[in-house]
Amino acid sequence: MIGKKTWIIPDGFLQPKSIGNQISHEAVCVLNLTDQLAEIQLTFYFEDLEPMERFFSECGSERTHHIRLDKLTDQQGKEVPRDVPYAIKVDSTVPIIVQHSRLDTSQEALALFTTMGFPIE
Amino acid sequence: MIGKKTWIIPDGFLQPKSIGNQISHEAVCVLNLTDQLAEIQLTFYFEDLEPMERFFSECGSERTHHIRLDKLTDQQGKEVPRDVPYAIKVDSTVPIIVQHSRLDTSQEALALFTTMGFPIE
Amino acid sequence: MIGKKTWIIPDGFLQPKSIGNQISHEAVCVLNLTDQLAEIQLTFYFEDLEPMERFFSECGSERTHHIRLDKLTDQQGKEVPRDVPYAIKVDSTVPIIVQHSRLDTSQEALALFTTMGFPIE
Amino acid sequence: MIGKKTWIIPDGFLQPKSIGNQISHEAVCVLNLTDQLAEIQLTFYFEDLEPMERFFSECGSERTHHIRLDKLTDQQGKEVPRDVPYAIKVDSTVPIIVQHSRLDTSQEALALFTTMGFPIE
Repeated sequence: MIGKKTWIIPDGFLQPKSIGNQISHEAVCVLNLTDQLAEIQLTFYFEDLEPMERFFSECGSERTHHIRLDKLTDQQGKEVPRDVPYAIKVDSTVPIIVQHSRLDTSQEALALFTTMGFPIE
Repeated sequence: MIGKKTWIIPDGFLQPKSIGNQISHEAVCVLNLTDQLAEIQLTFYFEDLEPMERFFSECGSERTHHIRLDKLTDQQGKEVPRDVPYAIKVDSTVPIIVQHSRLDTSQEALALFTTMGFPIE
Repeated sequence: MIGKKTWIIPDGFLQPKSIGNQISHEAVCVLNLTDQLAEIQLTFYFEDLEPMERFFSECGSERTHHIRLDKLTDQQGKEVPRDVPYAIKVDSTVPIIVQHSRLDTSQEALALFTTMGFPIE
Repeated sequence: MIGKKTWIIPDGFLQPKSIGNQISHEAVCVLNLTDQLAEIQLTFYFEDLEPMERFFSECGSERTHHIRLDKLTDQQGKEVPRDVPYAIKVDSTVPIIVQHSRLDTSQEALALFTTMGFPIE
C-alpha cells in the first residue's frame, strides 16, 4: 500500500492578514491511492493550550483533497485559530501521502511555502 | 541504482493568473543517473474527477528534465487544467529522483516553492 | 515513540534587514508527542568559527514550540548572530519532530521557506 | 556517522535577472559533523548537454559551508551557467548533510525556496 496512516507537520500558522484577492491560508494536501475512502482526523497542537482533536475530513479513492485549514471546522463548529502557532497530526484509516503548504498575503505580494509531511511508520 | 521508479506530489496547482514576463507554472524536475532512457508517465488526480493518466515524458541517461506542467499535453492534446487542485504520480521505467516546484506570479512579485517528491519503495 | 532525538538543518541565516511590521526571522518548530517534557539543545555551526553549543529550549508533552531563533539567547545571554550563514543541530531528551522555516522581509514583500529537518537515526 | 556521502538536487536554476541589492543565486548548504575535512565534488546535469563534473569545494570538521553556486568555478575557471535548468549531484569524502536553497530577485520582491537534498544510501 502506498503511503502512511500518520503524518506530522510541526510548523502551522494561519496568517491573520490578507491583502488583495487571495486569502492567507494553509492546506493539508492528501492523495489517496488505495481503493477505499480515507477517513481523516486532524489534531492541532498548541504552545500553551490543550490539543484540539475533533477535526475530520476525508479523501476518496484515487482522489486528492487539498484540505483548506482556514475553512475547516470541528464537530462543534470551531475553527482552527488564526495568529497562533500550531502543529498538526494527520491520521487516516488507510495509507495516504500528505504535503503541507502555506499562502501568506499579508504584505504587498504573496509568499508560498511547502513541505512533505513527516511520515510515521 | 540511484533513485526510485515512483514518486508522489500531493500539492499540485497551476495558478491561472500571471503578472509580468514570467508565466505562473509548475515543474516536475527529474534526474536520471542510470545508463538508460527514462520513459516517464504522469498521472493527475483531482478532487471530483477521474484521474488523467495519459501524460508522457522522458529523460535521457545522465540528463535532467524540468518537465513544465503548463506545457505538457496528453496523447489527445489535452492540457493539465489550470485553477484546479490536483496531485501527481510520476512513474518511470528506470529509477529517477523527482523534485516539484511552483512559480506563482499572480501578484506584483513572484513566489516560489519546492519539495522533493515522496518516493515509493 | 514518534520522532527522533536529533535533527539537522544545514541552511540557517538570520536576514539582518526587515521592512514593514514583520521582523525577518527563523523558527525551529518542534512537536512533542511523548508524555514527557522535551529538553532541547541547539548547536549552531559556522563557516569560520567554533560552534556555539549553549542554547537551550524546551517543549511540553503534547505541545508544539516554534522556537524563534531571533529571540533565543544562550546561557551567557548571547544571541544567534545575524547576517552570517550557519547550520543547526537540534538534540532532544525525547523523540520530537522538527521543521525549520525562514521569514525574510528585506525587500518590499516578504518571502518564506520551509523544510523538515533531516532526522538522525 | 551522521549524514550521507551522496546527495541529489533535481531542480537547479540560476535566475539571470536580479533587482535591488541582492543577487539571484542558489546555495548548496553543507554541514560536516565528522572529525575530518569533507572534500566535495559537485556534478551538474543538463537537459541537452553533457554533465559538468569538475567543480570542487570543501567543508571543515564541525563547520558549515553554504556553497554559492553563482560564485563557484570549475578547475578551468568555468562558471555554472545561468538561465539553464540543471540538476546537481553532491559527492563528499565523508558523510555530510545537504540542503539546497534558491533566492530569486527577478521581480520587485524576492522569493525563496528550499529543500533537503535527496540522500543516497
